[in-house]
Amino acid sequence: MSKGTTHSNVMDKDDITAFLAAYFPQIKEGGTELLVEAAGPMTARLRMVFNERFLRPGGTISGPTMFMLADVGLYVAILAQIGPVALAVTTNLNINFLQKPGHSDLIAECRVLKLGKRLAVGDVSIFSAGNGVLVAHATGTYSIPAH
Amino acid sequence: MSKGTTHSNVMDKDDITAFLAAYFPQIKEGGTELLVEAAGPMTARLRMVFNERFLRPGGTISGPTMFMLADVGLYVAILAQIGPVALAVTTNLNINFLQKPGHSDLIAECRVLKLGKRLAVGDVSIFSAGNGVLVAHATGTYSIPAH
Amino acid sequence: MSKGTTHSNVMDKDDITAFLAAYFPQIKEGGTELLVEAAGPMTARLRMVFNERFLRPGGTISGPTMFMLADVGLYVAILAQIGPVALAVTTNLNINFLQKPGHSDLIAECRVLKLGKRLAVGDVSIFSAGNGVLVAHATGTYSIPAH
Amino acid sequence: MSKGTTHSNVMDKDDITAFLAAYFPQIKEGGTELLVEAAGPMTARLRMVFNERFLRPGGTISGPTMFMLADVGLYVAILAQIGPVALAVTTNLNINFLQKPGHSDLIAECRVLKLGKRLAVGDVSIFSAGNGVLVAHATGTYSIPAH
Repeated sequence: MSKGTTHSNVMDKDDITAFLAAYFPQIKEGGTELLVEAAGPMTARLRMVFNERFLRPGGTISGPTMFMLADVGLYVAILAQIGPVALAVTTNLNINFLQKPGHSDLIAECRVLKLGKRLAVGDVSIFSAGNGVLVAHATGTYSIPAH
Repeated sequence: MSKGTTHSNVMDKDDITAFLAAYFPQIKEGGTELLVEAAGPMTARLRMVFNERFLRPGGTISGPTMFMLADVGLYVAILAQIGPVALAVTTNLNINFLQKPGHSDLIAECRVLKLGKRLAVGDVSIFSAGNGVLVAHATGTYSIPAH
Repeated sequence: MSKGTTHSNVMDKDDITAFLAAYFPQIKEGGTELLVEAAGPMTARLRMVFNERFLRPGGTISGPTMFMLADVGLYVAILAQIGPVALAVTTNLNINFLQKPGHSDLIAECRVLKLGKRLAVGDVSIFSAGNGVLVAHATGTYSIPAH
Repeated sequence: MSKGTTHSNVMDKDDITAFLAAYFPQIKEGGTELLVEAAGPMTARLRMVFNERFLRPGGTISGPTMFMLADVGLYVAILAQIGPVALAVTTNLNINFLQKPGHSDLIAECRVLKLGKRLAVGDVSIFSAGNGVLVAHATGTYSIPAH
């Protein structure tokens, strides 16, 4: 984020929660519960409520589950800036799995690193809510229509 | 893959299908149906049967669904080489979404690019079965226990 | 690359070599010698002539040297398709280092995986010319101006 | 970084500067001047002094130059933790180019996100020193020998 540049968000966490419920009903499927805890300028924080269905062998939360949390989190952080009209599309996502998460909620701290006219880039740090351990880190690029 | 080096696989597609059914029952959940179509030396081909539950707004198959296909596909390709004892763990996955897939099965062509003692690296090309279009490409790294 | 779609290139290897010499004189600096060996539809092959200055401790060719080869190689493959007017800019590059290259030329086999109006995506396999070993694999995204 | 875990570094910035000068003389070649400004627990800050040789067409600092800064920066941050004996090797580096840097020094803020027995992962934010703009962000994985 450039120093000296200010960005104000156009959707708050309640706006985004309502938008997701209307357009992404599937994020409530299969036991998933994603809560938008904060959506500020160029940032967002999401909580994924723990569900045993996420577990893979070894008793850890699966990679695709964390990928989904990172992807939706960055999408939310961008949406908070540009509003619900523009439909951003993920073009690239790179994720590093760092530690096995425990049986606990996951917290995704999302930052928009660049908000250009055509591309937005951000990163996400995913923590295990129980002990605060950083379990995954992702970077994503989104193509955004003219807005 | 180095020219001049030969690798033979230790599990075939039936072995792997049985292994996945026993240890990853969740890949059959939520309407997912993943078929191992081939598992040869340093390669694997998987088919994900189309299901409307995968769709996201815009009528396209969701990113997390393709991430899961890429991740399981590379896991299968590595497993075919090193056998069911060693449990590989994804450490990094980078995915580019190239085209919107249609309402069709997806085919994942997976290659192991490096099979080291501690790390395996591979890539996956995901095609839409209906029209053969390349819809996503992923590269992944897996940490493998001593084997 | 979609089956059923044909792409023809607008610059051949001599056009591209002349273009690089005019606009990227620095790729001849510091002992670097990059040869465009082929530039066909949606592909390109480059050779980086071995130079001891590339070596880092351990006697291997440095990561930044291979990054540069991958980046220029993908740039060339895209340029061959869209011509010298449009100036593509790298937005993302992900590289996996697989094996230590020997004291030998490097060959970069480059493929354009997507050529959209705004973004192009491709991958590069870098081989050691001496023994044909795959030493690195990269995936890159380029933002392309209106063309 | 996990809360509740403490890491103390075993090399300070002077130790690292001396180590780099002895083992990586090439980072002083071609006009490059890399200064280690800080090396604290799980972090490092490097400065790359601006040199016109870094410029590519369009008057911007080249991608390979920023790749090299990110790669050396993460290497330094890891070295500060594990000492000069162990020679870490880059296995993966993913970089996003966000803004064109001006004619100015670059500052790399590096964080170690995971320091495991076999793998270390970190990220780097590269700023233009003149105006504080974030120009690139990278994530890297390093294989570390037994230590």
